[in-house]
Amino acid sequence: MLWSGWGDPDRAAPLPEPVVALLRDLLGVRPGATAPVALADVEVPEPRLSADALTEFARIVGDRNVRADTETRVRHTRGRSTPDLLRIRAGQASDAPDAVVLPGTHDEVVAVLRACARLRVAVVPFGGGTSVVGGLAPSGPAGAPGTFIALDLRRMDALVSIDEVSRTAVLQPGLRAPAAEALLAERGYTLGHFPQSYEWASIGGFAATRSSGQASAGYGRFDDLVVALTVATPQGDLDLGRAPKSAAGPDLRQLVLGSEGALGVITSVTVRIQPVPETRAYEGWRFASFAEGAAALRRLAQDGPRPAVLRLSDETETMVGLTDPSAIGPEGEARPLDGGGRGLEDGGCLAVLGFEGTAGRVAERRAGVADVLRAAGGEPLGAGPGEKWERGRFDAPYLRDALLDVGAFAETVETATFWSNLPALYGAVRDALTGALSDAGTPPLVMCHISHVYPSGASLYFTVVSAQGKDPVEHWARAKRAACEAIVDAGGTISHHHGVGTDHRDWYAREIGPLGAAVLRAVKDRVDPAGILNPGVLVPPV
Amino acid sequence: MLWSGWGDPDRAAPLPEPVVALLRDLLGVRPGATAPVALADVEVPEPRLSADALTEFARIVGDRNVRADTETRVRHTRGRSTPDLLRIRAGQASDAPDAVVLPGTHDEVVAVLRACARLRVAVVPFGGGTSVVGGLAPSGPAGAPGTFIALDLRRMDALVSIDEVSRTAVLQPGLRAPAAEALLAERGYTLGHFPQSYEWASIGGFAATRSSGQASAGYGRFDDLVVALTVATPQGDLDLGRAPKSAAGPDLRQLVLGSEGALGVITSVTVRIQPVPETRAYEGWRFASFAEGAAALRRLAQDGPRPAVLRLSDETETMVGLTDPSAIGPEGEARPLDGGGRGLEDGGCLAVLGFEGTAGRVAERRAGVADVLRAAGGEPLGAGPGEKWERGRFDAPYLRDALLDVGAFAETVETATFWSNLPALYGAVRDALTGALSDAGTPPLVMCHISHVYPSGASLYFTVVSAQGKDPVEHWARAKRAACEAIVDAGGTISHHHGVGTDHRDWYAREIGPLGAAVLRAVKDRVDPAGILNPGVLVPPV
Repeated sequence: MLWSGWGDPDRAAPLPEPVVALLRDLLGVRPGATAPVALADVEVPEPRLSADALTEFARIVGDRNVRADTETRVRHTRGRSTPDLLRIRAGQASDAPDAVVLPGTHDEVVAVLRACARLRVAVVPFGGGTSVVGGLAPSGPAGAPGTFIALDLRRMDALVSIDEVSRTAVLQPGLRAPAAEALLAERGYTLGHFPQSYEWASIGGFAATRSSGQASAGYGRFDDLVVALTVATPQGDLDLGRAPKSAAGPDLRQLVLGSEGALGVITSVTVRIQPVPETRAYEGWRFASFAEGAAALRRLAQDGPRPAVLRLSDETETMVGLTDPSAIGPEGEARPLDGGGRGLEDGGCLAVLGFEGTAGRVAERRAGVADVLRAAGGEPLGAGPGEKWERGRFDAPYLRDALLDVGAFAETVETATFWSNLPALYGAVRDALTGALSDAGTPPLVMCHISHVYPSGASLYFTVVSAQGKDPVEHWARAKRAACEAIVDAGGTISHHHGVGTDHRDWYAREIGPLGAAVLRAVKDRVDPAGILNPGVLVPPV
Repeated sequence: MLWSGWGDPDRAAPLPEPVVALLRDLLGVRPGATAPVALADVEVPEPRLSADALTEFARIVGDRNVRADTETRVRHTRGRSTPDLLRIRAGQASDAPDAVVLPGTHDEVVAVLRACARLRVAVVPFGGGTSVVGGLAPSGPAGAPGTFIALDLRRMDALVSIDEVSRTAVLQPGLRAPAAEALLAERGYTLGHFPQSYEWASIGGFAATRSSGQASAGYGRFDDLVVALTVATPQGDLDLGRAPKSAAGPDLRQLVLGSEGALGVITSVTVRIQPVPETRAYEGWRFASFAEGAAALRRLAQDGPRPAVLRLSDETETMVGLTDPSAIGPEGEARPLDGGGRGLEDGGCLAVLGFEGTAGRVAERRAGVADVLRAAGGEPLGAGPGEKWERGRFDAPYLRDALLDVGAFAETVETATFWSNLPALYGAVRDALTGALSDAGTPPLVMCHISHVYPSGASLYFTVVSAQGKDPVEHWARAKRAACEAIVDAGGTISHHHGVGTDHRDWYAREIGPLGAAVLRAVKDRVDPAGILNPGVLVPPV
């Protein structure tokens, strides 16, 4: 992972000049001091760990699995939100971990946690490092983090076992998603979990943050896939899940899922798996409006049949999506390319559908879905837009880096609600983002899509692009606050799949109310009396 | 509800004489002192509530909603497990509540809870009174319950609202399931939740115990249907659920579902609803063995298509099911009736399937299911066995009363596990029940069925019939202990849909482990510091 941005540096590509011109004309984007500093110039605080502590960690995990060099610390600093990137690009790594510890087994995790509790050293579990909500940035009571280590789980990267009868697999938390897919594919299986962070994110991270993949309509969210978990805490282990479902009390698995490292370190995850689909097919549909398209998606979510992938862009996102950089001519005019935009020239909204399974099942389901969408006013656009989406499905974070490079700002906000409340929530968040950034002198482009649907509701995912302005971190903080207020006031959840972290904690506290927060605090105090587990993340102060 | 047994006394029917003869010959069932005492002869302890406490409750809910008469107290004594019935039939009501309080609103519930916390009076939330796991029998630290009231929620029985866009309904907890269905049906909707206790159980009870209905394969379990909840506790309210799914931390709804009144009183439940199906169809299939049938069910659960109802009886249950009482001739020989058993005369296992939806969808799904079942070795038996099951689907508890009346003992045990572990769990529990009751001198008939399936596993539901013997309560306590040990040792969950109550608490503690129990205790201590909420139920002592 690029230390100052996303992914594989070899896959980064600069924005074409015509797009840069468009951003300038449309949003006032101006080049600034936007290039990242050199890695050697990043400022990292002096490590605060005692030699005794380092010796203790080395005793547990081995010398070479305790790292305190600057580069390793920088590479474990915060996550991948745009403010995270803006700060690291500017050389600011004040909240770097004091050391990075790499355990190899559950028992080593337990021993590290016990040592940390004794030494009063905080622990940030680290998987893919892809948090966009401050999930890797602990904070003490006064805001500044105390001494802390990143507990990098990359050595715990095994596919432990497959149960072909039950169609489950036991995975270690540090296994990255592509590696998990590759190991499962050798046996003919897939998890079917493909969030945008797929290429870098880890199994433990998926569980700890309730990740939701792009094929959630077909495979379910990650929290739907998990049937058992093992969790290490300073006070002992939790070993949960003896059956798919149970009436033996509250479902404690659901207390661990979404716990974001604040209640323990997930050391084993048992997930449902499915046979690798024989075939995959993607296609596009046009709807006259976002509301009409949403009604069509709702129809499918409630009455079926369901595709595996089901997404709908609003008018703005559809329009911007048509602006294929490589298709922009010398006149600076956007043109649709490769069938990806035919049929959308006169506006409307693009829906992308994906189907997976046996050829027969896919054909049958496509036909059934087409009937529903036609009846709901949809016009088929063929495979082009679907395949275009599929090719670029993991590329948005690279595009963000390219935007930052030319002085633009790009970030996302997401939420979910029940269907009847979706229009109001959509309007409220859109207005809040537009208003706050316009007030700051950087009027944005605000795009939105629905990418996860349920019988009773759906997610909304907003992408914001604007000029960086004088202080983009502060501008965004204000816009983000406005969006979060709008979400909570309009009855949405503060996150559908990014999580809470530190960024959403105050609104999360409002979402679950004072008693909900107190319950969570009571659980945390029980499993983590020393308060070393990702302090400041998730759990509201009481 | 009959105070000494199940349901509507007008629907009770004695066992035909030939069945009684069969029970005598097969299991040694002998008539004993098995008729219930008269209601007037039931012994109820002197109420321990002070006049001040009664006045306080009356001030909150009104005079006529505080009842301390003997009949009302008897009718709120314990639940409907067989030991519960044996004891109440014998006139034992030592654990009757000291009074029954009927709140009409959420605020009245809150006020009663606060008063109880102040007065140190325990509270047992009471819906349909159908618990079979001791969920209505609180116990103090020394085993004997202290002063307690039953909080009967029957006055909170409204369908509050329907959201037709989101397909959700807000229901009050005291609404009985048939009333809920009737109110929803007026608007064209159904919950699709039909557990065996359907005719008497309440919405709040379904949520508090993670009920699972007979059509769970099609509609999902009750915990799948719930999207939002309001809970009153002595320390404030929880108001949970802003979206179908969320990544905003742990799913606290899942901490309330299954909390069995020990963490609060559920005062509002928002559930998914579906249009009333146009058509329903039931059918039977034969499999050569339980294992072969289970493999076929697994195929459907994992790869679809899924019927709404999907059940499989083992060889013993299939054989007994053929013994239609009304078809037993003068020679005392069982004969299959009305197509209900044709094709099963030579043994094998009966699977019952139910389909619901539009006529077109039902026909299509039936055909798809038939292809899968045929490929898995199934033989179609036509509609007869399915329709027979459907007619009697809520009748088993009546049959149990009739068995008790003639001196037989009948009770159930249920669990769930992953598919690969199902044969071992089945054998272990069957052996434990058979062994323990044979040792007690009352060798039983042990029958089993699978009635709830998931992609990764399924439930097992055992029915035991034997002679009562000298001390049936004690015999069963020993057999039940053996079965619970077998379940936990063989990796099953201590309950798939009956719940924990007091009966399963010790094994539940082993299932979730010491830290799981400590976490639950920490939550309870936070929301219920006075320990008044259904004490002794669910939450293991720490």
